[in-house]
Amino acid sequence: MMQHVKPVDISSAYRVFNLGGTVFVQSSVGDDLDIMPASWVCPLDYSKMSAVVDSTHYTRKLIEKSGYMVLSTPGLGLQQEVMYLGTVSKNDNPGKIEDSGIQFFRMPDCEFPLIEGCAAWAVVKIIAEPHNQKTYDLFVGNIVAAWADDRVFSNNHWHLEKGPESLRSLHYCSGGHFYAIGKAVDVDGY
Amino acid sequence: MMQHVKPVDISSAYRVFNLGGTVFVQSSVGDDLDIMPASWVCPLDYSKMSAVVDSTHYTRKLIEKSGYMVLSTPGLGLQQEVMYLGTVSKNDNPGKIEDSGIQFFRMPDCEFPLIEGCAAWAVVKIIAEPHNQKTYDLFVGNIVAAWADDRVFSNNHWHLEKGPESLRSLHYCSGGHFYAIGKAVDVDGY
Repeated sequence: MMQHVKPVDISSAYRVFNLGGTVFVQSSVGDDLDIMPASWVCPLDYSKMSAVVDSTHYTRKLIEKSGYMVLSTPGLGLQQEVMYLGTVSKNDNPGKIEDSGIQFFRMPDCEFPLIEGCAAWAVVKIIAEPHNQKTYDLFVGNIVAAWADDRVFSNNHWHLEKGPESLRSLHYCSGGHFYAIGKAVDVDGY
Repeated sequence: MMQHVKPVDISSAYRVFNLGGTVFVQSSVGDDLDIMPASWVCPLDYSKMSAVVDSTHYTRKLIEKSGYMVLSTPGLGLQQEVMYLGTVSKNDNPGKIEDSGIQFFRMPDCEFPLIEGCAAWAVVKIIAEPHNQKTYDLFVGNIVAAWADDRVFSNNHWHLEKGPESLRSLHYCSGGHFYAIGKAVDVDGY
């Protein structure tokens, strides 16, 4: 699949997160890497993101230490992994990531591994906002690099209907229940 | 439709926004009411919301004056109105809301009119955060009342597949292009 992973224009990189689906929040310090799925991740500007990461999550310590988080959008093929990563904590199982079945690939200019089976990925450099982090568990940051799978996103636009169903975004409700993104809807004249 | 509008438990009212679709941000001071559609609206906690509202929007002045915003989730029947409300500013057309075709209804315990054709509604009381408002155009607040259409949401859960297609959430890409939320996906054991 790596041949399909293409850079996304940073100045409008929010678009890969605009559908509002479940996002993987990943962070690492050296070899110590964790991933948590999150619904409370949102564009804050054209190339800024916000994410709510509770203080109990192992991922949070890694974000605070490294100053970076990697956000990615798991597709319809990864719902089992989303549930596993969201219910098992690395605080309890240090082998969480190996046990999750998640596979990674590398991009030449990126120091962080990226998660296979996602439709888009972004590296976010955290902006220090101690009040927001403490009061709201809210982290904000600048997208400094982004990629998307060109079977479903190119020229700054999603075209999910042209790609494999396994890349359609997942939208979480509760208790193992999701909706996948559905049909395209176009309003003429805009 | 009013007979289908039922209160939502405040302690988990975030769930009506968890699918991540387009949201109407509405605010008013007296009879002066405006509505803007936004994708950058996100739960911040179980009964807290965040919303990015640019300083150029007429809606922002109303939020700052009133201290409240009403968030609602337009369904697949309202995509024309979403585009209209997102491209016409009340700064330019004082008759924007009348011209939009948006219809309202009233709930007995709510001082604000609610928008017909949405699947859920929430009244949010703004928490003063001048730094976030100035730096990121970010408003946060507490949900103080919420309702949902019981054909698609009840007992704190979405069941969109049981209701009319017109209430399915809209997820905005760009330039009049949306996706509607699609099929239910369940992971057993959670």
